[in-house]
Amino acid sequence: MMMNLEQLFWAKSVAVVGASTNPSKLGHVILKNIINGGYEGRVYPVNRAGGTLLDLPVYKNLNSIPGDLDLCVMVVPANFAPELIVEGAKKGAKGAVVISGGFREAGNEALEQALVDTARANGVRLIGPNCQGFNFLPNRLCVSWPLITARGAMAIISQSGTVAAALAGWCQDEHIGCSGIVSLGNQADLCETDFIEFFLGDASTQVICLYIEGVKNGRRFIQVCKGAIKPIVVLKSGRTPGGERAAITHTRSLMGKDAVFTGVCRQTGIVRVDTIESLYDLAKSVITIKPPSGNRLMIISSSGGAGIMAVDRAEMLGLEIPELPEELKQELRNGEFPRNMIINNPLDLTGDALAEHYARVAKIIDRYYVADSLLLIFGDPIPGAADALVGLKDKLGGSFCVSYLGGGEIEKEEVNSLLSRGISVYRTPERAVQALARSAPQYR
Amino acid sequence: MMMNLEQLFWAKSVAVVGASTNPSKLGHVILKNIINGGYEGRVYPVNRAGGTLLDLPVYKNLNSIPGDLDLCVMVVPANFAPELIVEGAKKGAKGAVVISGGFREAGNEALEQALVDTARANGVRLIGPNCQGFNFLPNRLCVSWPLITARGAMAIISQSGTVAAALAGWCQDEHIGCSGIVSLGNQADLCETDFIEFFLGDASTQVICLYIEGVKNGRRFIQVCKGAIKPIVVLKSGRTPGGERAAITHTRSLMGKDAVFTGVCRQTGIVRVDTIESLYDLAKSVITIKPPSGNRLMIISSSGGAGIMAVDRAEMLGLEIPELPEELKQELRNGEFPRNMIINNPLDLTGDALAEHYARVAKIIDRYYVADSLLLIFGDPIPGAADALVGLKDKLGGSFCVSYLGGGEIEKEEVNSLLSRGISVYRTPERAVQALARSAPQYR
Repeated sequence: MMMNLEQLFWAKSVAVVGASTNPSKLGHVILKNIINGGYEGRVYPVNRAGGTLLDLPVYKNLNSIPGDLDLCVMVVPANFAPELIVEGAKKGAKGAVVISGGFREAGNEALEQALVDTARANGVRLIGPNCQGFNFLPNRLCVSWPLITARGAMAIISQSGTVAAALAGWCQDEHIGCSGIVSLGNQADLCETDFIEFFLGDASTQVICLYIEGVKNGRRFIQVCKGAIKPIVVLKSGRTPGGERAAITHTRSLMGKDAVFTGVCRQTGIVRVDTIESLYDLAKSVITIKPPSGNRLMIISSSGGAGIMAVDRAEMLGLEIPELPEELKQELRNGEFPRNMIINNPLDLTGDALAEHYARVAKIIDRYYVADSLLLIFGDPIPGAADALVGLKDKLGGSFCVSYLGGGEIEKEEVNSLLSRGISVYRTPERAVQALARSAPQYR
Repeated sequence: MMMNLEQLFWAKSVAVVGASTNPSKLGHVILKNIINGGYEGRVYPVNRAGGTLLDLPVYKNLNSIPGDLDLCVMVVPANFAPELIVEGAKKGAKGAVVISGGFREAGNEALEQALVDTARANGVRLIGPNCQGFNFLPNRLCVSWPLITARGAMAIISQSGTVAAALAGWCQDEHIGCSGIVSLGNQADLCETDFIEFFLGDASTQVICLYIEGVKNGRRFIQVCKGAIKPIVVLKSGRTPGGERAAITHTRSLMGKDAVFTGVCRQTGIVRVDTIESLYDLAKSVITIKPPSGNRLMIISSSGGAGIMAVDRAEMLGLEIPELPEELKQELRNGEFPRNMIINNPLDLTGDALAEHYARVAKIIDRYYVADSLLLIFGDPIPGAADALVGLKDKLGGSFCVSYLGGGEIEKEEVNSLLSRGISVYRTPERAVQALARSAPQYR
C-alpha cells in the first residue's frame, strides 16, 4: 500500500472542501493561497452553499466536480472527514490533506482510527489531520499558509506549523526559498520519514530541515536517514523532563528518551541542533556555502572587534586560524589597500575598507592555499558589497560567507542584495563562523 | 585631575575640526549628525577653507570661534591633534574627542603619548583617539555615526565601533533606544571604567552594555563594578589563544588571561555573555522585563511545538515549569477559550487563539500565584497582540515577555507595535526564555 508521494505533491487537480467566503477562515485562506501561489492545475472549491468564490465556481460536493481529482483538501469539522475520503476516492483522489483538528490531539482516537482505516480501505494517503498542510514549490502548490512563493532548495518538515511557518518566512525574507514545506500534524498515516524519503528523491531539494518532537517508527527513520544522500538537520524538542511531558501532550507520539535520539543522530549522521535559529542557519549554510576541504579559516574584517569575536568562536568550534606566510604578507603590503590595514589573520581592513578591498584580498589569499574557508566581515556601512563579492564564487572553492553588521540602513540594503545573489550572509560573526564550522570536514 | 565627565557629555558648545564639504567624509557625517540629532547647543565647524557648511559658518581655526567652547571634536590627520588640544583648551574646552586614527594602533606610541601629555597639561579629558566618538541622547549630542535618535535606558560602551553601532542600531529598530553610546578607541586617557562610572550616575541609564577586549586598570574596574547599583552586561572577546592574540593586535591593551576576567565577573556580579546577540538580549531584558520574584515560569502559547521548545530551554537554564492547580484548571475550563485549548503548562491556546485570550489567561493565572514570570508565545499571525497585552503590565509583577514567530507580515507589524509600547519581544521562544531566566533570582 506504499504510494508514490509524487502523485500527492505533483497533483494536477485539487479540491478544497470547506472553502469559505469568510476571508479570516482557513477554508478561504488556503484556497486563496493555492490560487495566488500560481498553481497551474485545476482548483475546485467545494461548499454546500455553491455560488462562486475567488472567481471560481463552487461545487456543492465532491461528486459534482467534473472529471478526475488528484488531491482532496479538507477544512471541515473532524467527523465529516472519513466520508469525504470515500467521496474523494470515488473521484480518483489518491491523496488527502486533513487540515481540521479534533482527532487524537483532542482525545478522539477512535475518529482518527476511522479516518485512517477509511483512507487505507480506499487507497488514499493522508497528510494530517490537525496540520497546516503543505506547500510544494516545484508544483507551485501551496495548500497551506502563509503563502511562500520563493523557490529554493530547503525542504522543511515540521511537527509544528509555527516552526514550519517561521522557517519558511525566514527563507522567503532572505531569498533562500524553499523546495517544500510539510506540516506533519498528527501523522495518522504519512509520517516524517515518508516525507524525508520524498525530499531525498526530489530534484530541487538540497537539504532537509526537520522539527520533530518524536519519531513515529524509529527503525524506519534510522534506515532512511542512514542512506541519505543529502544533509538532514534536525531540531528535536522535548529534551528535558518537562519538555518531554509537554511533547507527549502535544502530539502523543514519542520515540522514547531524548538520549536515544542523540544516539540515532550519531548513527545516521543527521545533524542535531539546539535552537530554531541554528536549524535555519545550518540548513541555509548547506545551500549557500560549498563545504570547505579543510578546517583552516581566513577572516577579513573592517572591524577589529568583530574579527576577534569570530576568532574566539572559530577556535571554540575547532577551526584553525592559520598564520599568513611572509610572501603573502608582502604581496598584501605592496597592494593598494587601506593605509592602516593590519595584515594578519584576522586581516583588518579598518574603517577605510571598500567593498573591492575584500574581493582583492580574497583573490590574493586564494592563490596561496593558506585557508579552506573565508569569512568576510563588513563592520561598517560599506556600499557595493554585493557587486564586489559576486566574482568570488569560485575562490576558495566557494567556501565563504559574510557577516554584515553595524551598518544601519546601508546594512539592510546590502544584506538584501547579497542574499538575493545567493551569497551566504549571517547577522553576526558568531553565527557566520558557526555556519562555516558546521560545513568543515571535522563535522562531516 | 579627575574631571567630572558631565562637562563632556553635557557640553553646551561643540567644535568639529576637520569639518568637510565631502558628504562621504567623517568630518561631514559627524557634523551632520550633531545637527540632525537635534543638539541644542552651539555648533562650530572648523576648516581652513572657511565658507559655510550645512548652513553654518565655517571657522578657519579654533581661535576664531566667538565665545567659549566646551568640547572639541577632531577629524584631522593624527599629528595635528596635540596642537589642537592646546588651541581648544585656550577657548575653554575641557573635553576632546579624537576620532582620527594613526596613533598607538598604527605603531605611533610616541604621538599618542604626546597627545595625552598635552591633554593632561591643559586640563583636557580625551575620548579616543582612533574611535567612533560618542552619542549622549539626554543632551541630544551625537558626535558619532550612525545617527541614533531613539532615547532609552541602555548605555553602550564598546572597544569596537562596529559592535557599538550594531547594538545601537538594534536598539533603534526595536524602539528600545539608548541613553548613551561610547566608542572607546585607544583609551589613551578616558577608559571603559570612567564611562561605566559616568553611566552608573546618569539618571536615564538603567543598564550598561559593555564590549571589551581587555580592561585598562583591573583594580579600578573591579572597584567601580563591585559597587554598581545598575546591571552591567559584558561581552569580552579574546577568549581563545588566537582570539587573545588578535585582541592584542587590535587594541594593544589586555588585562591578562581570560580566566582572570571570568573571576572578575564572579567577584563583581557583572554578567558575562558569549555572543553579541546575547549581549543585546540581556541588556534589553533589564529594561523591558521586571525581575521576577521566583524561578517559576508559566508559558502560554498558540503553538504546541514552540511551547515545548520553551520548556526545554527553561529547564536547561534552571527555571521551573509549575503544574497548574485543579481550581485554576477548572476556572480556565469554565472560561470562553478555544475549544481544543490544552490546559496545562505550557498552556496551548491552539491555532484558534485570539490576542485577548492571552490577556485573559494571564489575568486568571496572576490571581493564583502559581508562577513568577510569564512567557507569551504567539505562534500564528494573531492580530491585536499589542493592544491586548498593554493591560498586563502590572500582572505577575510585570515579569513577562513575548515571542512572536511564524506570523509573516502580521508578525512584523505586531512585533513593531509591541516593542513600541515597551513590551519585551524576542524573535524565538529560546531567546525569550533566556531573557526571563537571566532576570530570575537564580542569576541574581
